[in-house]
Amino acid sequence: MFKGTKMNVGVVGAGSFGTAISQIIALNVEEVILYSRRKKIAEDINKNSVNNEYYPNYKLNNKIRAVNSLKDLKECEVIFITVPSSGFRKTLEEMKNEGINDSILVTASKGIEPISSATMGQIIQEYYNDKYVVVSGPNFASEVVLNLPTVTNIASNSKNNLNIVKKILETEFFKVEEIDDVIGLEYCGILKNINAVANGICEGIQINENGRYAILTKGFNENKKIVESIGGKPSTIDEYCGFGDIILTSISKQSRNHTLGVLIGQKLEINKGHGVVFEGKNSVKTIKEICDKKCLDCKIVNFVYDVLVNKEVAKTAFKNLWKNITMK
Amino acid sequence: MFKGTKMNVGVVGAGSFGTAISQIIALNVEEVILYSRRKKIAEDINKNSVNNEYYPNYKLNNKIRAVNSLKDLKECEVIFITVPSSGFRKTLEEMKNEGINDSILVTASKGIEPISSATMGQIIQEYYNDKYVVVSGPNFASEVVLNLPTVTNIASNSKNNLNIVKKILETEFFKVEEIDDVIGLEYCGILKNINAVANGICEGIQINENGRYAILTKGFNENKKIVESIGGKPSTIDEYCGFGDIILTSISKQSRNHTLGVLIGQKLEINKGHGVVFEGKNSVKTIKEICDKKCLDCKIVNFVYDVLVNKEVAKTAFKNLWKNITMK
Repeated sequence: MFKGTKMNVGVVGAGSFGTAISQIIALNVEEVILYSRRKKIAEDINKNSVNNEYYPNYKLNNKIRAVNSLKDLKECEVIFITVPSSGFRKTLEEMKNEGINDSILVTASKGIEPISSATMGQIIQEYYNDKYVVVSGPNFASEVVLNLPTVTNIASNSKNNLNIVKKILETEFFKVEEIDDVIGLEYCGILKNINAVANGICEGIQINENGRYAILTKGFNENKKIVESIGGKPSTIDEYCGFGDIILTSISKQSRNHTLGVLIGQKLEINKGHGVVFEGKNSVKTIKEICDKKCLDCKIVNFVYDVLVNKEVAKTAFKNLWKNITMK
Repeated sequence: MFKGTKMNVGVVGAGSFGTAISQIIALNVEEVILYSRRKKIAEDINKNSVNNEYYPNYKLNNKIRAVNSLKDLKECEVIFITVPSSGFRKTLEEMKNEGINDSILVTASKGIEPISSATMGQIIQEYYNDKYVVVSGPNFASEVVLNLPTVTNIASNSKNNLNIVKKILETEFFKVEEIDDVIGLEYCGILKNINAVANGICEGIQINENGRYAILTKGFNENKKIVESIGGKPSTIDEYCGFGDIILTSISKQSRNHTLGVLIGQKLEINKGHGVVFEGKNSVKTIKEICDKKCLDCKIVNFVYDVLVNKEVAKTAFKNLWKNITMK
């Protein structure tokens, strides 16, 4: 007999993370309704329990039921949103239009909206309220889907919602730690990509390890300044979502933003992957604006901005950065 | 004409770091007197400007003069000590016996003495005074010797000595940042090795990246607790000597303590390298004692202790650790 939580849980987005988190949730609840924008993916999941696009050859839990319409999530008590940040607002509009009103919303999407500088949570607040839950941590989807050891952080203004989401997510191997800083947690997921691009660029121009890890240290500490300036807690940067995710994203060969940096350092420019999103490239402009507005001199943000936006030669940008690296 | 500081500087220990730092210092002063315990190394350096043991084929600065007797450092205004921690006290005794009395002492040696729990700086204090300078950072000697981009931290109770050492060390690429926490800086150099062994063990038993970087996050935060408990500042762990050196030592393939962990995880035990010292193995016992005395529950210290000292099977130790990973 099933011993998990009797609860309808929905997941929006059948990409790598949406599918992975559905797999975790399926260990704890009776049914996971996974929304895929693409009909073919939904059909595959329902027929063969496989997401051929993201995890071919991997059998998904048969408690995952795929749907192709957001309307089908209407009865869900909790809905996880995992779409790329660029499509986040549009997804929320659609959810609203389809009559989704009373669900607890959880964002696993990370990013910052250009012009508005809104985090994904702040966009939820525009359409719903401030009781959403944020999930963020050093969580490669390819490992989450296998239920391999992982810690994630969650935060919310609603203690009740936090407890419910924790219950839905936690397994023996997938550990969930609550933190008390919603905005800080969201910023961790944004800033780490800038650190990852910075480290990638340095690797691309073959900076030695002492130098690269000095740059990473600088970025880590600048993240604290940035988070503090927007009302978060600097100590959040020490948590799994901060320290852990910065290292994972900056160092692992699995990390896209790290790879982006390496390629740019090697003077190989890529504009678009096949459906792949480089959050670092998107967010550095907005973060740079925030730093300028708050009069924060953040050398790592400037470095990435100079290379990605101003198209400065990476080696020249590094020289400028190094000149002032120990200046506070 | 030479524009550097007119000063006699000595370095004790012609190992990889002693030789590397001599090379940096030689860029700033007129003469570096490098003491080697082994006559052959000293002769090689004086005859061919090469340290064949550590940097064969690499031409050292000819301002480096090697000596084979500590007596020859008597006139040095500043002396850097770079010997392994296990020989540190004996070296100080010899220095004292040879009549070295008025030099500013700098320790680049890292470690903690068994039984006494004394840091290298605290041992200096027993023989001299508390005005010593500590140097520590993410500083692979193999990169320092080439004057590649590197940041190091220094700390001292004497502002005057700090300024002198900074002047002697800083170059365009070798950057020096002062911090205001002598004991915290020393502990960074000790604790990072425990983190490195922990990460190595996890790699050896093939723990996935989400899991490994969660462990590293836990260790990072436990270092803060430990440093605070012995009177240092937790924020020191955020600095180059903390964050930067933890990452470097835990992740780089160049790191011995990381390698030690990997081998143990793979059930390959090594007891001795060829003159190679595993500081992590030496210090975990002493750090564990300190944690117990201070009633600190440090799960990463316990994990490394269980595997290295209690000879627990690494996979079993990991399972125990993971069970409680999110407990504060």
